[in-house]
Amino acid sequence: MSTRPATAISPEQAAVEQQLVDTVVASFEGTQDPRLKQLMQALTRHLHNFAREVRLTEGEWNAGIDFLTDAGHITDDKRQEFILLSDVFGLSMQTIAINNETHKNATEATVFGPFFTQNAPEIPIGGDIAGGANGQPCWVEGTVTDTNGNPLPGARIEVWEADEDGFYDVQYSNHRVAGRAHLFTDQDGKYAFWALTPTPYPIPHDGPVGKMLEAVGRSPMRASHLHFMVTAPDHRTLVTHIFVEGDPVIEAGDSVFGVKHSLIKRFIQQAPGNSTPDGRDLGARSWARTRFDIVLAPTPDLM
Amino acid sequence: MSTRPATAISPEQAAVEQQLVDTVVASFEGTQDPRLKQLMQALTRHLHNFAREVRLTEGEWNAGIDFLTDAGHITDDKRQEFILLSDVFGLSMQTIAINNETHKNATEATVFGPFFTQNAPEIPIGGDIAGGANGQPCWVEGTVTDTNGNPLPGARIEVWEADEDGFYDVQYSNHRVAGRAHLFTDQDGKYAFWALTPTPYPIPHDGPVGKMLEAVGRSPMRASHLHFMVTAPDHRTLVTHIFVEGDPVIEAGDSVFGVKHSLIKRFIQQAPGNSTPDGRDLGARSWARTRFDIVLAPTPDLM
Ligand SMILES: [Fe+2]
Ligand SMILES: [Fe+2]
Repeated sequence: MSTRPATAISPEQAAVEQQLVDTVVASFEGTQDPRLKQLMQALTRHLHNFAREVRLTEGEWNAGIDFLTDAGHITDDKRQEFILLSDVFGLSMQTIAINNETHKNATEATVFGPFFTQNAPEIPIGGDIAGGANGQPCWVEGTVTDTNGNPLPGARIEVWEADEDGFYDVQYSNHRVAGRAHLFTDQDGKYAFWALTPTPYPIPHDGPVGKMLEAVGRSPMRASHLHFMVTAPDHRTLVTHIFVEGDPVIEAGDSVFGVKHSLIKRFIQQAPGNSTPDGRDLGARSWARTRFDIVLAPTPDLM
Repeated sequence: MSTRPATAISPEQAAVEQQLVDTVVASFEGTQDPRLKQLMQALTRHLHNFAREVRLTEGEWNAGIDFLTDAGHITDDKRQEFILLSDVFGLSMQTIAINNETHKNATEATVFGPFFTQNAPEIPIGGDIAGGANGQPCWVEGTVTDTNGNPLPGARIEVWEADEDGFYDVQYSNHRVAGRAHLFTDQDGKYAFWALTPTPYPIPHDGPVGKMLEAVGRSPMRASHLHFMVTAPDHRTLVTHIFVEGDPVIEAGDSVFGVKHSLIKRFIQQAPGNSTPDGRDLGARSWARTRFDIVLAPTPDLM
């Protein structure tokens, strides 16, 4: 209940603190599952090392408890504040990095995000994922190959994105499925579809995570992106985004640290009336086009 | 989305992971409050080091998100699962240790716990804190002095405890105030009161923390204890417990790591009919007595 002592830590004090760490670590010795034991003991050491290093005050500990409580109370089946928290500390991205080690020329992974759903409709090659979502039409094309350049026919591509107002379909109350679809590569590993040119949007920032970002002077904006999840037999599932070259949020800093240089693509703006790749008539509307060639790593046991 | 690679981490992979840590740390550079900046940057490093050290899988990350979500949803104004979580990882006790460095012969501190309330009645010296709570009567007496042995008259002593069924008054729905009171030392720094002989009780274990304790083979039991908070001008507030010598839970391990050797006291059992210190007639009931001499450290600026 006292204030933090300004004096240096004595060897006796350091011994008391280390003794406590050792006691807590030992309390997990009886854990049956060896992996769970490893996780609990490592978490104990890192939590205590954090508190000891910063000399955490009792007031700060209380603030931490209150923060987690608020995060828990705002979380429901549509809002996940703990994922946001993990995201803004880069922990989600680190978990991706740990589990998707770069393999040769394989396309890099990035965060999954909270907006994927299982129910996206299938479209043919050249189809439109918009489903009524508003935004500038954007032609996206490319190939799916293995790391040796062999095409992967029949690879499944899930794509999803926010509309021009920065909202995913699930953030509206009308239950419409829009801005998402899946399709399959052809026999040459090629794919193409119409989507919307991605625009920046903020992560939900009206809760404790938003308050924290404000307190540390960070923006909640995510760099403009289009989500991909690509699966093919004997290959590592790829969860990634493509980003829009020149988007100022890339320079300012994506709020969840999802940008990788290799995933930034040129989106080439087209004037109204420019002829479209598939002859689609867009009337007086401008449009854009981009290319994303995807390389899948083999599954780990085949590497 | 892949399984964790069994291969060792390449220098390239380690560099990718470290680069991410550095980027997240740098994102907090603009924080106005220097202490908040220090906390956020240290938390980032320790969180990432944990994930990297254990090679956290995406499934384990998900399980962590689910655990925090469940903890948030069971937490309300009567139940605080995040404090329990901090307690069973020894983080609460470590925070106490960090902020209450041992000072000469001053009495040691331990965890505050979630059951203190502001509304405890005042009792005179020799009064009874039970207020209708059930249990064996127990005479508690001692002195409050400074570290040089000078008595501290008028020191305020708050005491609170569970009844013989292991429940605090606030855990019942009847709004009764029982098993808690405050009193003041006399001009010689002496105090005495009737309480209940403490008995072991489990921390609430019907939620996610209880499930975790079960998975790791740990008991939710707390060693029998009586809570104290002692305040006197120019002295560091002392939050502590006394524990009951011979309680088997001390040997088995207190679930929140609150036991310190110096806080274990002899509770001397008395047969029915043994004369009481203040002449109180307990009829056919047995009783107990103990002694707790309290030494307060000076406030840090007077140390
Ligand atoms: Fe997104
Ligand atoms: Fe207690």
